[in-house]
Amino acid sequence: MVLVRPRNPLNIGAAARAMANFGLARLTVVAPYAPHWREARSAVGAPRQLRDATETASLSAAVAASTLVLGTGTLTHRKPEQRVVPLPLAVPIVRDELARGGRVAIVFGPEKHGLTRDNLSLCHLMIEIPTHPLQPSMNLGQAVAVCLYELAGRASETAAPDPPLAPSPADSASLDRLAGLVEETMETAGYSPRAMRAANRHDLHVLLRRLALTQRDTRRILGIFRRILWRLKREGDRNPSPR
Amino acid sequence: MVLVRPRNPLNIGAAARAMANFGLARLTVVAPYAPHWREARSAVGAPRQLRDATETASLSAAVAASTLVLGTGTLTHRKPEQRVVPLPLAVPIVRDELARGGRVAIVFGPEKHGLTRDNLSLCHLMIEIPTHPLQPSMNLGQAVAVCLYELAGRASETAAPDPPLAPSPADSASLDRLAGLVEETMETAGYSPRAMRAANRHDLHVLLRRLALTQRDTRRILGIFRRILWRLKREGDRNPSPR
Repeated sequence: MVLVRPRNPLNIGAAARAMANFGLARLTVVAPYAPHWREARSAVGAPRQLRDATETASLSAAVAASTLVLGTGTLTHRKPEQRVVPLPLAVPIVRDELARGGRVAIVFGPEKHGLTRDNLSLCHLMIEIPTHPLQPSMNLGQAVAVCLYELAGRASETAAPDPPLAPSPADSASLDRLAGLVEETMETAGYSPRAMRAANRHDLHVLLRRLALTQRDTRRILGIFRRILWRLKREGDRNPSPR
Repeated sequence: MVLVRPRNPLNIGAAARAMANFGLARLTVVAPYAPHWREARSAVGAPRQLRDATETASLSAAVAASTLVLGTGTLTHRKPEQRVVPLPLAVPIVRDELARGGRVAIVFGPEKHGLTRDNLSLCHLMIEIPTHPLQPSMNLGQAVAVCLYELAGRASETAAPDPPLAPSPADSASLDRLAGLVEETMETAGYSPRAMRAANRHDLHVLLRRLALTQRDTRRILGIFRRILWRLKREGDRNPSPR
């Protein structure tokens, strides 16, 4: 489980306690506000999940080893670019991913504004808790409890054994490597005006996750782009462009 | 929804917020600690459910109109006398009760010790959230969120229309009236030594809820016991016992 920039120490504690309630061991916290994070970790009765938590500077580092990254949030003020799945329907998706040997991360954003569009570009799916239209936004600790009740409880208890022939899904670090290489290729090929780079990078992250690439697909595409990039650079050395 | 003697204003607020999230309107609070209750109600952004909440002195008054009363809690330190139902399996039970025109109440106990054995004797079932054995006990606000997500969300969205011939279930007030009359009859008949009265009353509450009486059953049994009691008293007036 990943918490991105959590603020309130009570919410951090409640999130960790829900992990303990539903048997999840590994918590990663992205760029927490240091004083509150210290306070939450040192609270009396803080569960092991808080003491053993990993801290990373970016969400991309936090989910590097994951093959299925689930974002969470409410959709009141935005139209997400990812597929949105109501929480109950995410159960079979998580179960299948675990069954084929994948690693699943569920990501919760900061209390006030939730996950940013950039955070979500690193997620394969967005999970929505079906709430009442008049009060759609849930408290962080409660949202974590509801998601873990549904996903950790149900999805894991019925997980089938590894089917030996299922292809291994690409992890997030490979997708990031691929995105970086594609981006470098685009730049080298002069495809992308400087002003468009951030937008293109974002779209690329979203696209790569929608494709459901296997680890092997990713290796192959990486190989292709390495070759293209090498060629482009050699050409560039021979015929320097006027840029 | 009913909160029995809640202590922490933050938990009261979180419980009410979960009600708003899952579209529940009616909150009853039993014997709250007055200063904390005032604080929770007057908090900035307190949901309507808190402002409109009913306050009662006893759980029995709080659930008087309910036909299915669900207790909640963890089973670590006790062996309940009620049927225990894991939360996911309670969904069809609640749905069926709503479909036959019943009124369902879900009851949460105080943070530290949960519902007492006496509280539970007024419940038809005990709902258990499946949690990890190493950390079975959940935070109140989170337990409320998980239960309402499952029961309010799912059970109501799939509720079938009222089957016209289904018998109307007995409400808690009728069961209490019946229990009181049976108890009076037992005393008048000299069945129950004074020292056993509390225990017998308790067992009677538990038994009456296990029977799943309809409103009509209850009226009929009330009639029988009224007659018995009237007879016993007339006999008693003629032949006063030496007690």
